[in-house]
Amino acid sequence: MSILIKNCLVVTQDKQRRILKNHDILIEKGKIVKVARNIQDYADKIIDGENKVAIPGLINTHTHVSMTLFRGYADDMELHRWLTEKIWPLEAKLEAEDCYLGALIGCIEMVKSGITSFVDMYFFMNDVARAVKETGIRGFLSYAVLDFPTPCFSSPSEGIRKAEEFYLKWSGDPLVEPLFSAHAIYTCSEETLLGIKEKADKFKALIHIHLSETEKEVRESIEKTGLPPALYLEKIGFLSENVLAAHCTWLNKEEIGVFSEKKVKVSHNPVSNMKLAVGGRFPLKALMEKKVTLSLGTDGPASNNSLDLFETMKATSLLHKYLNRDPTFPSAQQVLDMATIGGATALRKERELGSIEPGKKADIVILNFRKPHLTPLHKVVSHLVYSAKASDVETVIINGEILLEEGKLLRLNERKVIERVNERVANLIKR
Amino acid sequence: MSILIKNCLVVTQDKQRRILKNHDILIEKGKIVKVARNIQDYADKIIDGENKVAIPGLINTHTHVSMTLFRGYADDMELHRWLTEKIWPLEAKLEAEDCYLGALIGCIEMVKSGITSFVDMYFFMNDVARAVKETGIRGFLSYAVLDFPTPCFSSPSEGIRKAEEFYLKWSGDPLVEPLFSAHAIYTCSEETLLGIKEKADKFKALIHIHLSETEKEVRESIEKTGLPPALYLEKIGFLSENVLAAHCTWLNKEEIGVFSEKKVKVSHNPVSNMKLAVGGRFPLKALMEKKVTLSLGTDGPASNNSLDLFETMKATSLLHKYLNRDPTFPSAQQVLDMATIGGATALRKERELGSIEPGKKADIVILNFRKPHLTPLHKVVSHLVYSAKASDVETVIINGEILLEEGKLLRLNERKVIERVNERVANLIKR
Repeated sequence: MSILIKNCLVVTQDKQRRILKNHDILIEKGKIVKVARNIQDYADKIIDGENKVAIPGLINTHTHVSMTLFRGYADDMELHRWLTEKIWPLEAKLEAEDCYLGALIGCIEMVKSGITSFVDMYFFMNDVARAVKETGIRGFLSYAVLDFPTPCFSSPSEGIRKAEEFYLKWSGDPLVEPLFSAHAIYTCSEETLLGIKEKADKFKALIHIHLSETEKEVRESIEKTGLPPALYLEKIGFLSENVLAAHCTWLNKEEIGVFSEKKVKVSHNPVSNMKLAVGGRFPLKALMEKKVTLSLGTDGPASNNSLDLFETMKATSLLHKYLNRDPTFPSAQQVLDMATIGGATALRKERELGSIEPGKKADIVILNFRKPHLTPLHKVVSHLVYSAKASDVETVIINGEILLEEGKLLRLNERKVIERVNERVANLIKR
Repeated sequence: MSILIKNCLVVTQDKQRRILKNHDILIEKGKIVKVARNIQDYADKIIDGENKVAIPGLINTHTHVSMTLFRGYADDMELHRWLTEKIWPLEAKLEAEDCYLGALIGCIEMVKSGITSFVDMYFFMNDVARAVKETGIRGFLSYAVLDFPTPCFSSPSEGIRKAEEFYLKWSGDPLVEPLFSAHAIYTCSEETLLGIKEKADKFKALIHIHLSETEKEVRESIEKTGLPPALYLEKIGFLSENVLAAHCTWLNKEEIGVFSEKKVKVSHNPVSNMKLAVGGRFPLKALMEKKVTLSLGTDGPASNNSLDLFETMKATSLLHKYLNRDPTFPSAQQVLDMATIGGATALRKERELGSIEPGKKADIVILNFRKPHLTPLHKVVSHLVYSAKASDVETVIINGEILLEEGKLLRLNERKVIERVNERVANLIKR
């Protein structure tokens, strides 16, 4: 199907960060083929872009989408108690259908809020993949591998085997992109970490990992290995340009240098970090100065409690302006970059995703800007970061398919999914 | 007109913080008359509350609503340059019609996002009052009085005279509640401050003031008076239970003690404080321990850039959990209190506003909770603070009148107001 978006304000996020007024976007066979004024080509579907803003789909580089099930289940608790008394006991009871439904409602939430790609690390990933396919979103999915028994495997070697099977099963899929994950250095032995790396290297796949999230993790790493988390990973040969590290709240200067040198990718998750009170200080400025690829994640809905990158963009800006005591840093443009082209680069997909340019995959979000809270419009990038809301997302195109049109999901019955999730959660709590 | 809301989940915010399932709310002559199950009384209008949550209208205790005109006009700038190069030159050109239209679009934004009362300090306040009356929101309005010439008066004595005229004109109005404002200690001489206080005392009115917002303000206060801002105000006899102080980012322990003793009310504005990078650290915990009345403000849309207390509630929680390195503080309930009953108490209206209880004014917000991002529902107060969005607000009742019904404004044509604001802003920039 071909789609022509007419007369839109296009925030391209191309190299020049061009903002194009009254431009049209032509989409054919899942790709953007033309961005220009007054395109006269035939299209199966025309979208009126008057008073609308088109942006590249937002890229959420760290979440555990099935954890929507636990959203708001236990807030305002101390982290260790939260995990041991609330989250882990429920996770131990998880079944495939739980993860499928949790992922399904989370994918719907993401599509409706303008997220077109997300990175996930959890359990029952074939069921998460099923939710991704049904929704039509782009999922970069991986089994969380760790040394403890999980609902899906009882040993890390079994986990690695499952992860490889998962990789082989989904490799080449147009929407599900498999990758590998090591949960964290405090849950994976050196053997596990290197076992995962070996598999990822074999397929030239990305490895996702939680890194340097809490002071406890750093302290224990130093006690055990003599090194802070990133330097330990560097020492064992784990780090490379194929590693996407989430959180990095406690990175020190030397670790930032290693990240820069090894081209490690970073996912910043400010809402979760603040809500869980992990302390530390994500070194945004130092990482930018060292040209480390930066992206944004929501983290799981149990610790956020939203899958909303508009909120995360604003939180990123607010937090770092405040911490740096500098209202000029980061700029709205820098933050928007993290949520779009930065995310694509973090996934090594900067040639395919992250901007509105001919040749790229058609993952496009159209926002309605004729809203009181977006009036007047002085600067569109400022509005995207500081004033726009997930609810301004009106139309979402992923891989050239319209999934959301004027706020309505085209593929799924949202109300029915909500009912199924509610029933399933009641069942899970009882179990 | 009488209104009956049926079968709703009611977050009362009463003394016991009761949450009532499947309850009905009966509204007559602008007041809540009954909250119970299965109310059988006659009502002119029935609202189906199935899958809906009713909360007391949110109270925004600090803004400059007409500054919607400058929303996104100059972000990411150093504070002094922002004011002197961008904001003040435009403010100098402001006319009454600008402030009216800026206020009108801002009031619409607030109603749509569940704010039913707001405190404003700016210029051309009769025109802001006109916007309040047209929208139907509750406005606690005051002229900003300061020693420098403004678009409305050229001397502070003229300002105080205008403020008194404004007070007399609007006193007794059902929606516009006039109060007095001193802009700040760095813009008002002692004579001006005491002149305003004298008028406020005469009418037993509230005085609103910006206080201890930046380090510069504190430093200059100490240089000039030997005292930090709040102690200086205490020394000159300005502080009382009728003072509502906005920001208070830099309060020290002694000042917190004085606030507690004098029962000064506080408006916390975390989004603006972070965005403008004012530094300091709003002493939330210490103020709570000293039982100081705490409320939430958005500040003006030029420094936020939204009029959205759902966003502000989440930002309050995130910021203080992070700063305190304690995920348990503040709790969702404590934050919701600040946005509702805390706001009412800050305005000395705790007997009339801020909770859903018989006898109170009918300022009620109904949210649609059948949304993917609010699924599942474990705890309603957690969802209100961490997951709900302004866009979940579906119906808004102020003073017993339905202003917003299923997301549609009943009194005003939103699209026409947007067009008028856009034209006016183009004209202002040219002027």
